[in-house]
Amino acid sequence: MPPLRVAAAQINPTVGDLEGNTEKILAFLAEAEDAGCDLVCFSELAVTGYPPEDLLLKEGFIRDARLALETIAAATKECVAIVGTVVSADDANFSLGSANDARFGSPGGDGRPVLANAAAILSQGQIQGLIAKRLLPNYAVFDEQRWFVPGQGSDPLFLIAGNPVGVTVCEDLWSAHGPAVDLADRGCSLIVSLNASPFSIGQHEARRQVLSERVEETGAAILYVNQVGGQDELVFDGSSMLISDEGLVKARAASFVEALMIADIHLTQGASLENGDVRTLTQTTRSDEPRIEGDVADDQGRDAEIYDALVLGTRDYLKKNGFSDAVIGLSGGIDSTLVAVIAVDALGPEHVRGISMPSRYSSDHSKSDAVELAKRLGISIDTVSIEEAHGAYGSMLGGVLGGEVAGLTDENLQSRLRGVLLMGISNATGAMVLTTGNKSELATGYSTLYGDSAGGFAVIKDVPKTLVYDLCRFRNERAAQQGTVQPIAVEVIDKPPSAELRLDQKDEDSLPPYELLDPILAAYVEGDQTGPELIARGHDPAIVARVVQLVDTAEYKRRQMPPGVKITSKAFGKDRRMPITNRYRPDMEPS
Amino acid sequence: MPPLRVAAAQINPTVGDLEGNTEKILAFLAEAEDAGCDLVCFSELAVTGYPPEDLLLKEGFIRDARLALETIAAATKECVAIVGTVVSADDANFSLGSANDARFGSPGGDGRPVLANAAAILSQGQIQGLIAKRLLPNYAVFDEQRWFVPGQGSDPLFLIAGNPVGVTVCEDLWSAHGPAVDLADRGCSLIVSLNASPFSIGQHEARRQVLSERVEETGAAILYVNQVGGQDELVFDGSSMLISDEGLVKARAASFVEALMIADIHLTQGASLENGDVRTLTQTTRSDEPRIEGDVADDQGRDAEIYDALVLGTRDYLKKNGFSDAVIGLSGGIDSTLVAVIAVDALGPEHVRGISMPSRYSSDHSKSDAVELAKRLGISIDTVSIEEAHGAYGSMLGGVLGGEVAGLTDENLQSRLRGVLLMGISNATGAMVLTTGNKSELATGYSTLYGDSAGGFAVIKDVPKTLVYDLCRFRNERAAQQGTVQPIAVEVIDKPPSAELRLDQKDEDSLPPYELLDPILAAYVEGDQTGPELIARGHDPAIVARVVQLVDTAEYKRRQMPPGVKITSKAFGKDRRMPITNRYRPDMEPS
Repeated sequence: MPPLRVAAAQINPTVGDLEGNTEKILAFLAEAEDAGCDLVCFSELAVTGYPPEDLLLKEGFIRDARLALETIAAATKECVAIVGTVVSADDANFSLGSANDARFGSPGGDGRPVLANAAAILSQGQIQGLIAKRLLPNYAVFDEQRWFVPGQGSDPLFLIAGNPVGVTVCEDLWSAHGPAVDLADRGCSLIVSLNASPFSIGQHEARRQVLSERVEETGAAILYVNQVGGQDELVFDGSSMLISDEGLVKARAASFVEALMIADIHLTQGASLENGDVRTLTQTTRSDEPRIEGDVADDQGRDAEIYDALVLGTRDYLKKNGFSDAVIGLSGGIDSTLVAVIAVDALGPEHVRGISMPSRYSSDHSKSDAVELAKRLGISIDTVSIEEAHGAYGSMLGGVLGGEVAGLTDENLQSRLRGVLLMGISNATGAMVLTTGNKSELATGYSTLYGDSAGGFAVIKDVPKTLVYDLCRFRNERAAQQGTVQPIAVEVIDKPPSAELRLDQKDEDSLPPYELLDPILAAYVEGDQTGPELIARGHDPAIVARVVQLVDTAEYKRRQMPPGVKITSKAFGKDRRMPITNRYRPDMEPS
Repeated sequence: MPPLRVAAAQINPTVGDLEGNTEKILAFLAEAEDAGCDLVCFSELAVTGYPPEDLLLKEGFIRDARLALETIAAATKECVAIVGTVVSADDANFSLGSANDARFGSPGGDGRPVLANAAAILSQGQIQGLIAKRLLPNYAVFDEQRWFVPGQGSDPLFLIAGNPVGVTVCEDLWSAHGPAVDLADRGCSLIVSLNASPFSIGQHEARRQVLSERVEETGAAILYVNQVGGQDELVFDGSSMLISDEGLVKARAASFVEALMIADIHLTQGASLENGDVRTLTQTTRSDEPRIEGDVADDQGRDAEIYDALVLGTRDYLKKNGFSDAVIGLSGGIDSTLVAVIAVDALGPEHVRGISMPSRYSSDHSKSDAVELAKRLGISIDTVSIEEAHGAYGSMLGGVLGGEVAGLTDENLQSRLRGVLLMGISNATGAMVLTTGNKSELATGYSTLYGDSAGGFAVIKDVPKTLVYDLCRFRNERAAQQGTVQPIAVEVIDKPPSAELRLDQKDEDSLPPYELLDPILAAYVEGDQTGPELIARGHDPAIVARVVQLVDTAEYKRRQMPPGVKITSKAFGKDRRMPITNRYRPDMEPS
């Protein structure tokens, strides 16, 4: 078949920003057109940004998205563009097959338009076709059956520079014996896959595995385009790929950045296109000469990927919500240290402000570690003692309670007094407070509601404590490789963790050592195991019983946490929908 | 056909409490057995409580629920019990039809058991059949396609006292031409409907309408059993009903309380049961003599229903989470007044503690109104000025900011200082803080994060301000009818609303009058209209633009609110899944 010049437009849209996303799509389209591409593909729901969630319930939004699509279509010329967007399923250009509304059987239907998560095929100023996503994920962070009906029936193929191209959206490629097989049976030699696939640890390898399986199953090459950027709790890593029909990665875009990945590809699969709907868009390639070999970006390694996901997630959350600056309470501990380093990488040192808020229980090394960190990062730091406020509350609260304020009440009080100070600085300066709690703390409730958890974004809320250490070491190593200042003093990594809310307090007074705790949390939270199952697998029964009880009773705190970047297979938030009121207490005794 | 004695067991289960729910089911079953019932029906997922959410992802939970069902089955004798529970779809007693897994196409499938939201038919110590819910709601607060596969194929009928009975679960009855038609075509004369249908304004009438339509469509009588009780943000009202095959309400259980509703019914539809799976359970009725006419509970009226929903939701949230007592900041304003009155009705006056926290801006009438309220309610009240803490923060924050603390920063500061005090009292006494913000405030962001919004449960978060007034008047009228003390002084209802965070502040300085604001909020939030649509319908363009902007930018605050009772058609929370990062800003100019 003729050679084909394809492009993956790995863009960073903003949810709801129809105008801005359209401009971005038009700019990438023009660049692909100029580069002689035959085809440029954008990510899933690129026009609306992914996921638009309940904006999709507004009919006005659906109409406005349709207008944006028409603007994009009108700008297309020779280069075919495939763009993800939402369309009303009664759209004239559209064949949904026999969408079975009874499946939904929902009073929520109530006359609203039936929607499809669609790929629009555009060229020569026209909408040439609309393909509806067939497999709608409704698990983990995904709620697609809330908004969309699935595509059914047989979809058209598109002849682009003489090559038969089939179109799928994200999940459509994840099942064996799925929609790709039908496309291949009908002679498709390139499968385009529009995606909005969020980052999590190991996800890139999982995708590559699935794509290899689909190539093997179908004999077709795959152009996999993924969204990049942060959206609330999700970070999309991009990592778009072109896989040849021999299963080789011919091109891969760098992760966590926008990119227009261009490559020429020769497809070998013979087409037998007698049957079905085949729409000829272009007959010959526009790119006879200088052949473009795709660039293949390196794998980053686990810690680099996670770190860069945290930086991009933080940067985009602030930027897309109109914030330029952050303020962070610096305790001198490892968590606030990592958050400050990420914030500086995301926003620049001139946009990060540290506040040290010592109490009578703060150690000298904590105070000096915070100052040393600020110095290494080149950020400002103010020191404000909370003692005056602590004293005032001692008498105010003591009066109501008829005695001294002590124990957990006093510990939480100190944490909340710091929260009030940070939020006041945020209100007065417009800087967003970044909270510093890690996943191990959040899981066990080892944090104070409205205290250390107060703020706009919880950067490391999905990072277990043991991984916090790994990321600190990684960031120092990256600095060493780059010949820049190592941001994190070795003393901060080496000292035992402490909340310093009472004299000589250590985390291990209240929690099992993190090396024991984190695997139990991973199995309980991410693995959905029960306490008895954990015990059967050899974990210490007393520790399991304690951890399970801590996790279950802290659900109400987690419900009031700020958002933060998902990096594991199951983050707290919409990824894990546990009831607060929950009396499931399986018998921990072996039966 | 022979007469049939049926019972609806309107129980209040607790999510996850397999043991407690089983005990409750056994107690109601024994009572129905003793009363000579032929059939007793429990609500949807009665064994697990509704909704169990991601507990369903724990295989151990599914196994434990199965054991609970076997315990219940073993206790059945002559009286047939129909009980809602979760079952693994590969259960031996079960025919799911040709469940199409590809529909889900989900990597989330990953070897986990496929689940059904089922009705278990039990008698003579055995599981006689399992019926899977067919229509799985996945809109509004419902996520059922996250966990369940739908029932397919043809379900059995059950001969109970010689009467052919068909079984459906909740949503199955909400569609015309739905599963009920097949049951009726095959000769079913009574349709049992197990439900977990949450309260919202007008929902009871909507249900009655739908049931009338189904009776008309099928010619069968319907026994509608609904869960009662609070579960996080949802309140189930019960209101179980028996509708005759003539469409008459023969029995209705009272709302918001547990009940065993028993009635005898003569079914007239002739059965033609030649075809299909008909399982004979019992041949004759056990209740030949004294006929039981069902009681028909009165309609309560809108305000009474809402008020009782708020009381039950608050009582159950505290009780089911192990709290007996509440503490409330009493400002003397209408919102905290209503919350205190509800709390006293939910928990009793000896379990409610009021705290008055005046500042330099508090008016004399506010302080005296708070004291007067406590007197009328018979609750304790402490007064703690926040001035000392306010002074301390003036100097602490002033130092960092390099100037006086003023404006919004100072207003938020005062609100947070009160939040810290209440949370300290909560920590020391074990009482839950009830927050007092209403829906109009939450919608517009007219509240302080970690300030007045700090607490465990937000009783009136779904109550618009104008409805707050209605409910106060209603509660006083109820007191007048009952001859008890009117809890709310007329001055509190009559004075203009104010946050009293600066001198002579009034809500109307910052917000449109609530009579204008609330209809706009209802159309924007509950009606999913856009700004331009609201303007096109005649609302003031400047007010619409301001309100839309307030609602959109306050999403981050709402995400950190405590749960509260849903009473409208769309509450904030899982009912309205708006992105925080959202740049949809449609042009407000008419085009």
